[in-house]
Amino acid sequence: MRDYEHKAQYYESDQMGIIHHSNYIRWMEEARMDYLSLIKFPMEKIEAAGIVSPVASVDCKYKKPCRINEVICIHITVKEYNGVKLVLGYEMYEKETGELRAVGNSVHCFTNRDGQIVILKKEWPEFDMALRGSREEKGGAG
Amino acid sequence: MRDYEHKAQYYESDQMGIIHHSNYIRWMEEARMDYLSLIKFPMEKIEAAGIVSPVASVDCKYKKPCRINEVICIHITVKEYNGVKLVLGYEMYEKETGELRAVGNSVHCFTNRDGQIVILKKEWPEFDMALRGSREEKGGAG
Amino acid sequence: MRDYEHKAQYYESDQMGIIHHSNYIRWMEEARMDYLSLIKFPMEKIEAAGIVSPVASVDCKYKKPCRINEVICIHITVKEYNGVKLVLGYEMYEKETGELRAVGNSVHCFTNRDGQIVILKKEWPEFDMALRGSREEKGGAG
Amino acid sequence: MRDYEHKAQYYESDQMGIIHHSNYIRWMEEARMDYLSLIKFPMEKIEAAGIVSPVASVDCKYKKPCRINEVICIHITVKEYNGVKLVLGYEMYEKETGELRAVGNSVHCFTNRDGQIVILKKEWPEFDMALRGSREEKGGAG
Repeated sequence: MRDYEHKAQYYESDQMGIIHHSNYIRWMEEARMDYLSLIKFPMEKIEAAGIVSPVASVDCKYKKPCRINEVICIHITVKEYNGVKLVLGYEMYEKETGELRAVGNSVHCFTNRDGQIVILKKEWPEFDMALRGSREEKGGAG
Repeated sequence: MRDYEHKAQYYESDQMGIIHHSNYIRWMEEARMDYLSLIKFPMEKIEAAGIVSPVASVDCKYKKPCRINEVICIHITVKEYNGVKLVLGYEMYEKETGELRAVGNSVHCFTNRDGQIVILKKEWPEFDMALRGSREEKGGAG
Repeated sequence: MRDYEHKAQYYESDQMGIIHHSNYIRWMEEARMDYLSLIKFPMEKIEAAGIVSPVASVDCKYKKPCRINEVICIHITVKEYNGVKLVLGYEMYEKETGELRAVGNSVHCFTNRDGQIVILKKEWPEFDMALRGSREEKGGAG
Repeated sequence: MRDYEHKAQYYESDQMGIIHHSNYIRWMEEARMDYLSLIKFPMEKIEAAGIVSPVASVDCKYKKPCRINEVICIHITVKEYNGVKLVLGYEMYEKETGELRAVGNSVHCFTNRDGQIVILKKEWPEFDMALRGSREEKGGAG
């Protein structure tokens, strides 16, 4: 699976002359949305099915600053998925040099619109299998 | 009616060392939401009534840059309101010096959730009067 | 010259279920940075030369809402350039349908780091010619 | 020390109808800047002294969603400070109910403009003491 690419934008810079750290959390979401599209369950489809996927937690470690116009590649990994809880890992590296810039994680669950936990294995086995499939594939490579 | 105040944030700065110009459009919205709360029609109430108020256009002229930790006051004026179209004007000035930093405008209409224009005078006369009332008050001061 | 493309992101949506209007101002900047790179004067080069290009004004008219995962193409035009003042126009349309979503403008000048106006024709004729060249090319097509 | 307050903004909402999770990282920064001002070392002063304070890592656990126009209070704690590394903790709760919405942490170091670690105890003892002082005060209350 190809890595997601984001070009760092001027409006993402701050007065330290580097990309503001909050944007990496947004890039992780960009990569996540791209990943969901790649496994054929884009967010529009998930939401149209009445399922929402709130973020339970995020973390990010900043290794080296990013600067405007750099292309940052994001390698996403399904670190954990048990049918209820999904843990994604992100490696962000600069495209030309391959230099690691940041690593992060996000934890997700799936609920219906009333906030009740949805067990994907029962209620949407195709999506459940897509998440498991991409995990195994990734696990094998990791 | 008191002016809205926003403290310019670090994450709003850019690598020019000033506040990024896109944030002023967001500050205009902050002042607009505050204005709607002041006239007793906060956005939650408007949306709960099934009415949405998309932005038809915005403009902003930048006079002098803003910097982090400056408090920017925003004076909002109802420039035009005819029951269908609402034009708001914004003067943004630095609190301590009173120095003008930017001026802007936003144009709004009101629709139902299907995107059809709502004539407030007919369908929500109390809100219509609140918008007219604040206009006259402002007009008298201008 | 190819148009710039931006995929609308989840974090750019708002609770109306559409892309928040402030992001279009940022997309205009993305397209502008891309344009500067295409004419071989990327912003890094301009800033390294000690020149800053503050935004003097922006405006945007919203025709039809954008939604997440739509690819928005931005066609940029040099509307006016006299060696001191640069006016850029932006047409934003959805890639698949070609449907116009928004049109905007931005006005720029060029200064040194002390805020003094720089006359590009004198002080950086190569950049001046690049801006003029792209104007004529665009003008001929318009 | 009073807690920092942030009113959740419309432009911070997303199409789930809640505040987008990336904004909490920005609110943590707002609270941090406010804290630095309260201990008399506002970021302008730190940067004017040639010191930058990059974020080494952040994390945030989301307990319950925030909605527009809610006032979120942020209680900041110096969890760890050894003269080189600073760990701040954040508790974010809704003002009216006191309900906890999120908890987070950020880790910081201090460098000069060339990226070299600055040992505050040696190079800026007043700032070092201000960070220690607020730690002890907080520690005593915890």
